Amino acid sequence: MPTLVLIRHGQSAWNLENRFTGWWDVDLTEKGEKEAWAAGELLREKGFDFDIAYTSYQTRAIKTLHLALEAMGRLWLPEVKSWKLNERHYGGLTGLDKAETAAKHGDEQVHLWRRSFDIPPPLPEEGTPWDLSKDVRYRGVPIPQTESLKDTIARVLPYWEERIAPDIRAGKRVVISAHGNSLRALVKHLSGISDEEIPGLEIPTGQPLVYQLDDELREVERYYLSER
Amino acid sequence: MPTLVLIRHGQSAWNLENRFTGWWDVDLTEKGEKEAWAAGELLREKGFDFDIAYTSYQTRAIKTLHLALEAMGRLWLPEVKSWKLNERHYGGLTGLDKAETAAKHGDEQVHLWRRSFDIPPPLPEEGTPWDLSKDVRYRGVPIPQTESLKDTIARVLPYWEERIAPDIRAGKRVVISAHGNSLRALVKHLSGISDEEIPGLEIPTGQPLVYQLDDELREVERYYLSER
Repeated sequence: MPTLVLIRHGQSAWNLENRFTGWWDVDLTEKGEKEAWAAGELLREKGFDFDIAYTSYQTRAIKTLHLALEAMGRLWLPEVKSWKLNERHYGGLTGLDKAETAAKHGDEQVHLWRRSFDIPPPLPEEGTPWDLSKDVRYRGVPIPQTESLKDTIARVLPYWEERIAPDIRAGKRVVISAHGNSLRALVKHLSGISDEEIPGLEIPTGQPLVYQLDDELREVERYYLSER
Repeated sequence: MPTLVLIRHGQSAWNLENRFTGWWDVDLTEKGEKEAWAAGELLREKGFDFDIAYTSYQTRAIKTLHLALEAMGRLWLPEVKSWKLNERHYGGLTGLDKAETAAKHGDEQVHLWRRSFDIPPPLPEEGTPWDLSKDVRYRGVPIPQTESLKDTIARVLPYWEERIAPDIRAGKRVVISAHGNSLRALVKHLSGISDEEIPGLEIPTGQPLVYQLDDELREVERYYLSER
């Protein structure tokens, strides 16, 4: 039975500062690095192993992967990076303090932006310091200006089908290090979670989420490794 | 004109302990990590950039690459790992103290093993604690039992021709993080260095070695970036 492991990156600097991050490339905190290392140690202790690793274009997910693989003695595994596994793009909210944004737009509006299924945040303002269009990593990439969770799912799932699922069908053991919302996209698909429920599903940072999959690559069982 | 950058991994634990390392997977020391980071900072300051990175299956080269890329803000670049870029396999010398080995076999013999072009070290002894045959990373790999520099060159150059050179011909800017002898193999080829001279060519750790190449991918100019 195919096994898949998902890891949400460890704590980032802006998790700590309570700012909307999205595609902005913030680093892990020291705590986040420790979470990533502990994830790798736990995987090793429980006898997990992988043949290939996937991650996003964002430093916090890449470093989480590297630290976990190093703790497993598996830094040499092939790894594939794609912007399609990036966090949800927070548009004009990127870089803003969550409390200030709530004070300005009201709690209800911010809750809609954060936890609705298909309402994207506003577009970035002209001249914002959080402009991603000049980031060389996205040269040639049709980068979004803002995304709802639905939009994020619409880019994650084709990547899953085209790149990751064929590896699993070929018998490869896959680990994916990614972000709250790109992982929500996968969990929604694998576990058949409704549009209404998925925005409220919280995936803790640095906790390996293990999937046992059937032949159609749908959930037979899922659990956090720390709970076994 | 194509540019290529080679980096020999920073100081490893066994560089420091003066033991033959070869394919044994020792880690970087703290000094080695700093060297790797400094290499990335220097590359960034001098305006270097890359499209793809190559490295070996060995932790010290992979971590050197990751630290240098992180210092450049380029951790998201695609990276390709191959055992064909590994260090020379030191056979039965792997794990041994260099001074003890010289006391046992004589300085002249050790010098021959270390610095001749085509004399491989002895085969590993039965029951050696430095047995690589059970290392899962080499499953399915026709791993050598011992290698002369000539043997190392004989696996590095086909990989260069088949995998790396096509990227350079396609206009990609390539960085390679590898080992003293796998880099000697490349330098010998790119710079047309003789069999007699190449064993004595020392490549310092953590120093980006820059190549300007002609259309045949041979040296027009090579220099250490720290010297510019």
